[in-house]
Amino acid sequence: MATDVYQESLELHAKNKGKVSIQSKVGVNTKEDLSLAYSPGVAQPCREIARDPEEAYKYTSKGNMIAVVSDGSAVLGLGDIGGLAGLPVMEGKAILFKEFGDVDAFPICLDTEHIKAMDCDEAEKEKLIIDEIVNTVKLISPNFGGVNLEDIKAPRCFEVENRLKAEANIPIFHDDQHGTAIVVTAALINAAKVVGRQLKDLTVVINGIGSAGSATARMLLKAGVADMLLVDMNGILNKDNPETMLNWNHEELAQLTNAKGRNGDLAEAVRNSDVFIGVSAPGLLTQAMVQTMAKDSIIFAMANPTPEIFPDEAKAGGAAVVGTGRSDFPNQVNNVLVFPGIFKGVLAARADDFTDGINMAAAEALASYIPDNQLNAENIIPSALDKNVAQVIADAVVEHVRNRG
Amino acid sequence: MATDVYQESLELHAKNKGKVSIQSKVGVNTKEDLSLAYSPGVAQPCREIARDPEEAYKYTSKGNMIAVVSDGSAVLGLGDIGGLAGLPVMEGKAILFKEFGDVDAFPICLDTEHIKAMDCDEAEKEKLIIDEIVNTVKLISPNFGGVNLEDIKAPRCFEVENRLKAEANIPIFHDDQHGTAIVVTAALINAAKVVGRQLKDLTVVINGIGSAGSATARMLLKAGVADMLLVDMNGILNKDNPETMLNWNHEELAQLTNAKGRNGDLAEAVRNSDVFIGVSAPGLLTQAMVQTMAKDSIIFAMANPTPEIFPDEAKAGGAAVVGTGRSDFPNQVNNVLVFPGIFKGVLAARADDFTDGINMAAAEALASYIPDNQLNAENIIPSALDKNVAQVIADAVVEHVRNRG
Repeated sequence: MATDVYQESLELHAKNKGKVSIQSKVGVNTKEDLSLAYSPGVAQPCREIARDPEEAYKYTSKGNMIAVVSDGSAVLGLGDIGGLAGLPVMEGKAILFKEFGDVDAFPICLDTEHIKAMDCDEAEKEKLIIDEIVNTVKLISPNFGGVNLEDIKAPRCFEVENRLKAEANIPIFHDDQHGTAIVVTAALINAAKVVGRQLKDLTVVINGIGSAGSATARMLLKAGVADMLLVDMNGILNKDNPETMLNWNHEELAQLTNAKGRNGDLAEAVRNSDVFIGVSAPGLLTQAMVQTMAKDSIIFAMANPTPEIFPDEAKAGGAAVVGTGRSDFPNQVNNVLVFPGIFKGVLAARADDFTDGINMAAAEALASYIPDNQLNAENIIPSALDKNVAQVIADAVVEHVRNRG
Repeated sequence: MATDVYQESLELHAKNKGKVSIQSKVGVNTKEDLSLAYSPGVAQPCREIARDPEEAYKYTSKGNMIAVVSDGSAVLGLGDIGGLAGLPVMEGKAILFKEFGDVDAFPICLDTEHIKAMDCDEAEKEKLIIDEIVNTVKLISPNFGGVNLEDIKAPRCFEVENRLKAEANIPIFHDDQHGTAIVVTAALINAAKVVGRQLKDLTVVINGIGSAGSATARMLLKAGVADMLLVDMNGILNKDNPETMLNWNHEELAQLTNAKGRNGDLAEAVRNSDVFIGVSAPGLLTQAMVQTMAKDSIIFAMANPTPEIFPDEAKAGGAAVVGTGRSDFPNQVNNVLVFPGIFKGVLAARADDFTDGINMAAAEALASYIPDNQLNAENIIPSALDKNVAQVIADAVVEHVRNRG
């Protein structure tokens, strides 16, 4: 199947020459059309916006237009392939915004190759790349009502996001972090209901401490999870074990997790734990490891396309609820359930920025989309193809923003 | 009428919330759609482009996508209103590319207000703004097959264009310069035929020495015009009169024009001249001044919306052929006849850049669009609404590039 899907995808992309095109909302067929859409009439909306910048939301596409911004440094499982090679993914993201949320999204793929090629040390290059991304997004921000950061590697993505949230004047969202965190939180809220547990009583293991794992950890802590272990190839993150902490993000998370100071590898971490959340690599969780987990365990194995463990093995090991990132198994825990709706809501509400409160409102709306009487181990999250989800999330975001304002 | 068109334009812009939206070229309704347009299939075009960057033209929208880039420093007659307030014009330009040339165009409006607000001298600010524009365009270039610079003030626009042509790896065009130059050249070729003259024998006065006037001057010199006077509020540009030269661009043009070393104002310049080309301001050319011009004079009064002289006055003064920038008189000399087609051709030919040869091929194709037996004083240029023009220009550009390769 993998070979087929790759070949078919190539053909689809070649046939259409990509996936994004520009559409005019107004026809230009008569002199009158031209004089209203362009010169001389167009001078008037320009004057109005020059007088009051807020009017841009009234007279231009800004209010429903977002940028999908990437430097291509962490594209799917392909690594740092650069902005140009990442373009098919950013175009894909852009059309999902449109198809699912009716949000106009345009890919902005940044070419930072000249910095990578510079003759200076890595720390200096990293600083330059972050400066360039932040500066460019601020410069191009007039046309956009928001920015979705995408496929930027960790910890670069955290610094870019933090700086842009402080310096840019439009809402900033990093989907790899928060989209994942929100959909996992929604899925865990419902999975906990299915097994009759509360979040505060669950021991949660997250495997992978990059952008997705880190944001998921922070959000689940805010959602009430009290006992959490973060794991990567260096073992369980432990504030007393410097070898497990590769950067400032790991140091911060080490302060928030692993209260009992446990050490060891993934097998050690999952022993007696209730929840495994994988944002890591294929096959890392074995059936034998699941067998050591607590009764009625919950497994979200989201490595793509091959999960940390396949559902049948996880269940054979004793798991009660299993989700993956794939569409060919039940419980597809996929960001596409989140980003179109949360942006639609933030744009509609004219929120200043994405906040923890907005993200949590989105997670709760997504979880509540499945009524309690339809919840079961095979149905904790809506289909990724359900185009009604985005509006429900958007409505919840708008309501949250109004109640807070 | 002016009040009406402005109010109607505001209503059109408010009703549609701007003019540009994003369209998906592929549907996303099934699991298969999602797996081909997005994960996991999309990894394959990414891999192909990482292997060979040229493949981006095959698998993405790059090959038919251009950026309409402006800092909003010279928007219509409104001056330096900034990127955000210029957005309605850039959206308008983008939809004209689409509607007339089927070229996808996206507005990129740059916010350089932070530089304007800096506490340093004007020369330093100017350098910083130019650096920022050039740097940003290079950084965002992966998604684009070309760049149309728009409404950037002179002489900034010349430096930005020259640097980008040297430093960026996609074709760069500044429409205010070259679009105007090409359409004027085409109109003059045909007007000269109507009055039975050759370009090399005409004395041409250009009023306005900003981006449009400067590029028009250079192009008409290349097209064979030998005797040319450039005029602005400081009088006839004269290499021996420093007060007429405000910047390096004026100094360059002074070397190329006014061989007889004439001095004086516009009235003096037009005396005995054959051609007046106005890219200046309303009402600057009087009927009395036209009466002093040579017999069968040619007048292109393109100030917008109010021309340097209205056609009836120009004809009463003795003009044989009159064009304006307006759609409500014959001979609308409008850039929209040029930019959709020339970009369509450059993109189709995968030309490295716009060149003088390409520009001249476009001008000749545009002039030839009107058969000799249909040429007359009221019909020297096609209607700005004629959507067949773009393909004719595109074909001529492709042929020119092929013959040169």
